[in-house]
Parts: sequence; structure tokens; C-alpha cells
Amino acid sequence: MDVATLQYLLGMVGTVAFAVTGVLAVTPRGIDLFGACVLGLITAIGGGTIRDLILGVPVFWAADLNYIWVALAASFVAFLTERLLTRKEIYRTMLYLDALGLSMFAIQAAQKVMWIEFGMPLAPILMGVLTAIGGGLLRDVLAGQPTLLMRRELYAIPVTCGCVLYVVGLSWLPAYPVEFGITCSLFILVLRSAAIYWD
Amino acid sequence: MDVATLQYLLGMVGTVAFAVTGVLAVTPRGIDLFGACVLGLITAIGGGTIRDLILGVPVFWAADLNYIWVALAASFVAFLTERLLTRKEIYRTMLYLDALGLSMFAIQAAQKVMWIEFGMPLAPILMGVLTAIGGGLLRDVLAGQPTLLMRRELYAIPVTCGCVLYVVGLSWLPAYPVEFGITCSLFILVLRSAAIYWD
Amino acid sequence: MDVATLQYLLGMVGTVAFAVTGVLAVTPRGIDLFGACVLGLITAIGGGTIRDLILGVPVFWAADLNYIWVALAASFVAFLTERLLTRKEIYRTMLYLDALGLSMFAIQAAQKVMWIEFGMPLAPILMGVLTAIGGGLLRDVLAGQPTLLMRRELYAIPVTCGCVLYVVGLSWLPAYPVEFGITCSLFILVLRSAAIYWD
Repeated sequence: MDVATLQYLLGMVGTVAFAVTGVLAVTPRGIDLFGACVLGLITAIGGGTIRDLILGVPVFWAADLNYIWVALAASFVAFLTERLLTRKEIYRTMLYLDALGLSMFAIQAAQKVMWIEFGMPLAPILMGVLTAIGGGLLRDVLAGQPTLLMRRELYAIPVTCGCVLYVVGLSWLPAYPVEFGITCSLFILVLRSAAIYWD
Repeated sequence: MDVATLQYLLGMVGTVAFAVTGVLAVTPRGIDLFGACVLGLITAIGGGTIRDLILGVPVFWAADLNYIWVALAASFVAFLTERLLTRKEIYRTMLYLDALGLSMFAIQAAQKVMWIEFGMPLAPILMGVLTAIGGGLLRDVLAGQPTLLMRRELYAIPVTCGCVLYVVGLSWLPAYPVEFGITCSLFILVLRSAAIYWD
Repeated sequence: MDVATLQYLLGMVGTVAFAVTGVLAVTPRGIDLFGACVLGLITAIGGGTIRDLILGVPVFWAADLNYIWVALAASFVAFLTERLLTRKEIYRTMLYLDALGLSMFAIQAAQKVMWIEFGMPLAPILMGVLTAIGGGLLRDVLAGQPTLLMRRELYAIPVTCGCVLYVVGLSWLPAYPVEFGITCSLFILVLRSAAIYWD
């Protein structure tokens, strides 16, 4: 299995995790199946969609609907198995998978923005953070609950640090984009996992 | 009168209904004339605007400002005659006209997306639903009230069923787009009207 | 110093004022530094970003990141010096600078829309208002507080009057765009300042 395939598969795992945590975040508010699927889908693809609109490129899911199918299926299953998924140990696992998605999507987004040389050097950082947290912000606003900007949780800050590290690092060592991307993703993953572990 | 003219006129009726129900949904919250016009306008054109941004095509109202004029005028009148319009029988009529707008805008949007072959076959369904409910979601978020995703009302589900039927049906019988579009619009209209009637 | 440089400098002053008032509007809700910077940035560039997405042109800050740097720095400083800035006389000064930003950004936006002849004559007015109030609306929605559409404050109405005056006036006297733009900006500034003064 080559790097691109692995990255794609991990991206799908991240999409599932985003959709599932998105649905679990709103089910206590007495939502129905339709609302759960819409909010799960928005959590999973919302950030990347806003990023692509700002970059002026076609939305990423138009060329590969698997992101939508996977997010809808995951939301559907999450709504039906909500009692199982909110068990403590399973929910923790979902949070770690969510952290995996977070770390990958942020760095991939920063990569995409650097690739098209859009608003260097600030925009890759901003778009990395937006991609990672945008979907969750949209979900919270539509579900009428406080957004993560109002919560003192280490969610967006690890992402920001990782994206800053990636952009600053690559400007010094432009010869190793793949290795550096993996390093920064792991950096975000470790920081966010620590925040989950000690929460 | 040909089909296109009829469709255009019905579209304007739908625009009026969207704006009026949009204004009536927020007037109990003590809004002023300016806020009412902004929220009425957003209810009427918000969904189609987000759709066009995602599709990467010019927003539909840029080429035909009648949608804006009509939505603003309807919001203005709705704010001034709010006491009259919230009378039970008149309000019901507005809800049925709103259902007419819903059914037309959803299928027209699905049609538009299929026409430019964007993200087939899922995107026409998603964009149909987004066009129909996006404006109302924006209005609720800006007015600080619960969005329809959090309410157990048969509003978005008839739209989704109609759009699924349209996309699935057309892939089997691609020879009758107009007839099939009218059928699916009527399907949404009947389902939504039933939900209003038995509410 | 020529008109363009002056306009650019005043634009930066407006950006600072938008970011600072944006941060001060949310600090009572117990936000952290990260949230303050995100919301300050969104207040400063949110309206212009949505405008550019609707116009289908590259977002204004992609070509000149100074808007982002200045907004982030201003948000950072505003968060740290919040106690100083919320002193009555200093806060008033910030409100007047905010009014300056408001009046400039609105007319500049109307100008930009007329320049590319987008949806004349209504779109320049709509986009002027959207540019001026869009960032604040986004901030309020993300911070979970009532948007200005729900408050009876003279904020958006002076902007709307100024933009209407600008578009109507220029269609009669198209020979003096710069002079007329300055006049309409001053008109908004005076109206909004009066509202601040007698509040």
C-alpha cells in the first residue's frame, strides 16, 4: 500500500470519526434521524467545504462522493447505535479517531493551500485550522449549542501549533514535504490525545 | 403562457411566501423593520445563494434582481401587516404557498445540479434540500432561535424524499425530465401540505 | 500622501477598530486568547470575505495579508488590555473608530461592486451593508449572543442609507465617484457617530 492510498484510507477513518462525534454531540438535544444525518454530514465535510469556497477551487467532495456516502452512513449508524457509542471506553476511542482526523485534515489543508501558493504564509495556517474546526463550528451553531470557541478545551490550539510548525518548518526545509507533513500530523495527534487523556 | 413563464411566476410566488413566513417567524422576537427585511430576504434567497457558491456558478439573483425586489417588498409588507397575516386562516394559506415554493425550488435546484453534472448522483439531492431549507436555517441562526433541524416537524423530509425520487427516477427514465420534475414537485407539495393540514 | 495611501491607512485603522470592538464584545463571555483572536479576526474580515465569495472574486486578504496580521495583532492586544479598553472614554473612542471603519468599508464595497457591474443597482447596496455588518453577525453567531439584527441600535441603518445615497447619487452624477464616495462615507460616519453620542 503506497502513501497516497494510506492517506486516503486514514481520511475516510477521520471522516467517520468526525461524523460520529458530530452526531453524538447533538443527540442529547433530542434530534431525529434526519437532523442527525445533516449535522453529522456537516461536521464531517463543513470545514473543508468552506476552505474550498475561500480558495476558489471546486469543493473536494464534488469529485469524490465517497466522503459524503461515508459521512452519511456513519451518521446513520451513530444515531441508531448511540447508546452503545456513548459508553465511556467506546466514546474515548471515537475521540482518539477524531483526533486522528483532525491532525490529518489540518495538515492536508495547509499542504493544499501551500501547493496553490494562496496567501502565503498565513493562509495555510488559517485554512488548516478552519478545515479542522469549521465543520464542528457549523454543527454547534445549527444545533444551538455553544461553539468550541467558547469552551476551554484543548481542541483548536494543538491544530494551530501543528499548522504553524508545518508552515514555518517547510519554509526552512522545503526538501522534505511528506516527512514533515507526517511529523506535524503526529505532533497534533499527540497533543490532542494528551488533552483527551488528561481531561 | 408557456412552461418557463409559469415556472418563473410560481417561483416569484414561492419567493414571496418564503420572505413572508421568514418575517412572521421572527416578529414575535421584537425585531424592527430593518431586521425584518434582512431576515425575510435571507430566508427567500439564502438557500439558493449557498447552493450557487458551492456549485461555483454566479449567484442566481445577480442576473435577475427581481428575486431581491420581490423578497424585500414582501418582507416590508409582511412586517407592516403582521397582525393580519398571523390570523389563523391567512397564516395557513401562507404555509401552503411556502410549501409550493419549497417543492419548486428543491426540484429546480436538483435539475440545475444534474444539468451541470456536478457530483452525480448525490449532489443534486443535497443541493435540492439545501436550497429549500438553507435560507430558513440562516434566518433561525441569525435570529437566535432553534433551527428546523432541532424541531420534529415534517419540513425537510418531504423535500428529501422528493429529490431522491427525482434523481433515482430520472436515471431510469431520462426521456421525461419536465414531466418527472412536475411530478416530484407535486409529490413534495402533497406531503408537506399533509403535514401542515394534520399539524 | 495620495488618496489611495490615505484610504489604505484608514482601512487599517478600521480593521483595528473592528477587531478590537469584536474582541471586547465577547470577552464578558469568558473566552480565552485563542477564541478572542479567532473572533476578532472574523469580525474584521468576515463581511468582506462573504462579499467576495458572492461576487465570485478572490478574497481581498489573499493578495494583501496585512489585513490578517493587523486584525490578529489588534485582537491579541485587545484581549490582553481588555481592562484598559473597556474604560468608558477609551471604549467610546473605539466605537468612533469602528464607525470610521464601517463608513469606509461599506462605500468601498459598493464601489467595488459597481466597478464590476454586478447586479446593478441593488447589489452594491446589499454588498455594502453585508461588508459592514457581516463580520459582526458571524462573530455574534459563533459567540452565541444575539446578533445586531435583534437589537434596536442604529448600526446597520446609517450604513444602508449611505449606500443607497451613493448608488442613487452616482447614477445621476457619474462624473464624481471619488468626491461622492467621500461624501457618503462622511454621511454614514456622522449618522453613526450621532447614534453613539446620544446612546
